[in-house]
Amino acid sequence: MIRIAVDAMSGDRGLPVAVDAALASLEAHPELALVLVGDEAALREELGRRRKADRFDDRLRLHHAGEVVGMCESPARSLRQKKDSSMRVAINLVQAGEAEACVSAGNTGALMATARFVLKTLAGIDRPAIVSPIPSRRGRTLMLDLGANAECTPEQLFQFAVMGAVLAHAVHGIESPRVGLLNIGAEEIKGNLQIQQAGKLLADSELNYIGFVEGDDIYIGDVDVVVCDGFVGNVALKTSEGLGKLIAQFLREEFSRNALTRTAAFFAMPVLKAFRLRVDPRQYNGATLVGLQGTVIKSHGDADAVAFASAINVARMAVDQQVPRRIHDLLAHNLGE
Amino acid sequence: MIRIAVDAMSGDRGLPVAVDAALASLEAHPELALVLVGDEAALREELGRRRKADRFDDRLRLHHAGEVVGMCESPARSLRQKKDSSMRVAINLVQAGEAEACVSAGNTGALMATARFVLKTLAGIDRPAIVSPIPSRRGRTLMLDLGANAECTPEQLFQFAVMGAVLAHAVHGIESPRVGLLNIGAEEIKGNLQIQQAGKLLADSELNYIGFVEGDDIYIGDVDVVVCDGFVGNVALKTSEGLGKLIAQFLREEFSRNALTRTAAFFAMPVLKAFRLRVDPRQYNGATLVGLQGTVIKSHGDADAVAFASAINVARMAVDQQVPRRIHDLLAHNLGE
Repeated sequence: MIRIAVDAMSGDRGLPVAVDAALASLEAHPELALVLVGDEAALREELGRRRKADRFDDRLRLHHAGEVVGMCESPARSLRQKKDSSMRVAINLVQAGEAEACVSAGNTGALMATARFVLKTLAGIDRPAIVSPIPSRRGRTLMLDLGANAECTPEQLFQFAVMGAVLAHAVHGIESPRVGLLNIGAEEIKGNLQIQQAGKLLADSELNYIGFVEGDDIYIGDVDVVVCDGFVGNVALKTSEGLGKLIAQFLREEFSRNALTRTAAFFAMPVLKAFRLRVDPRQYNGATLVGLQGTVIKSHGDADAVAFASAINVARMAVDQQVPRRIHDLLAHNLGE
Repeated sequence: MIRIAVDAMSGDRGLPVAVDAALASLEAHPELALVLVGDEAALREELGRRRKADRFDDRLRLHHAGEVVGMCESPARSLRQKKDSSMRVAINLVQAGEAEACVSAGNTGALMATARFVLKTLAGIDRPAIVSPIPSRRGRTLMLDLGANAECTPEQLFQFAVMGAVLAHAVHGIESPRVGLLNIGAEEIKGNLQIQQAGKLLADSELNYIGFVEGDDIYIGDVDVVVCDGFVGNVALKTSEGLGKLIAQFLREEFSRNALTRTAAFFAMPVLKAFRLRVDPRQYNGATLVGLQGTVIKSHGDADAVAFASAINVARMAVDQQVPRRIHDLLAHNLGE
């Protein structure tokens, strides 16, 4: 049985989404047990509205938490003052061994700060990172860091590479993941000093390091793990989100321009649906906070039940594949301990 | 009359593309005169194949250059050893006042290094930057630096903002361009020290500074000028190119899956064409190297004639609107000289 704590109160859409996602996940995965953390009365009421909730009595538990971390609250403040928040309590459950992982749609800064404070980093890891799969032509590319660390030392970038490689192998089943360092090709001396040095560390390691990659390589699929600092990674991710929305809007506008284009839309509907399904960001929801002594998954703030269930599934797979232990082992091996 | 030198030899597709673009530009803009720089015999032969070339005898001149800078040649090497390259000679013509701007599809590093060496930067500008318009929901967003400077001081970021604002006003007709500083919102302390300090410089300036923006804001259109260092800018640009190509491929695949989807494609064709036209990167071709005492435009390496003509048009507008002089004036004003 895999037991996961779900912060049911954070996120933009609140409790109903978490409850729907939890029930769908329990239905899909018989080996899963969930602890919903949040206002117990509200949770009970929400569950009462769903007939199938009773079916999972033995695998669904509630755990009361009296506070909620706001989406714009400062990480430091929430860490100091919200000791009974659903986010904090869910992470505490992982620390206490009552859950093997937790999932939250709460604010990233608070989640990272709290997870780091409560769970601590793995030996050999300076700072945890945020990693997520990105769709590519040939499958998925893992990218990290996506925003936890604005500035990184070469050693930290190297640690990110190790963590990414473990995840690519353990969760995505890639035998010898190809690791690339995100760089630019345009200016006189390629990249900055940190990247040059991180490249040397990687070339000397036992990882399958393929060298520098550029922004467009993320989507081509000739690399399995793209390593960068959190500033660059976050900008690349948000830029992609923005472009995706722009293209979707342009498509919608062109297909609804007049009677003729609306007729075309009618004929093209099944194809457009298949296309939408393929690029649906909900199926890529669930970023992993790697480098901690425990598994913490961040769901997108405005995730719906489908997306939130994807994040729970990412947690399930990380537990199943013992990601933290494997990172620890590979790191120890590469550092020659 | 606006006289522009065209490096006709660089770029992945070489001379025929430059010649076609030149003729189309001369036809579209009666006030334009072009100097094609490159192997004179080859240029003459290429022009001889096109009947309409004769019509522009008075506005089309050839200028021989015996060498070509390779697309992967090091900037330092091309600067030292290729003094008779088409790229170098085209820039020399600007320096000598025989042309008011030049356009090249050659390698960015070499173009930037040569332009900086020959033309020098404007007073008050430490380093030139690469700027280009990006499509947005409400029109276009100018973004800089796109790859000339991997690391930037707060003062350089401030200078980029001034240059972007001038371009937005002069070339794109935006009265009081909204300037944003690219940052991330996810981690504990927003952004790094450089960005914090650049933000203060901008807040104290007379620019219409709207504060920090994130990656997705580039495409939303609530900001006219997005300022970032060249590393981040280049990654954002290349990432967008990669995602654009991925989406185009997914759409193609879905529409050609079987007989039914191919029928749908037939009905949707006019709409898909209109969509493609709207996101056609060729119309956004032509990045400006700003901050120099002269106008240099970089065309995409694999630009076709349509795209290359867009780049020539960017040069035409920059000359028409006296961009370098305006940058100098606004900078002097903001530095209180």
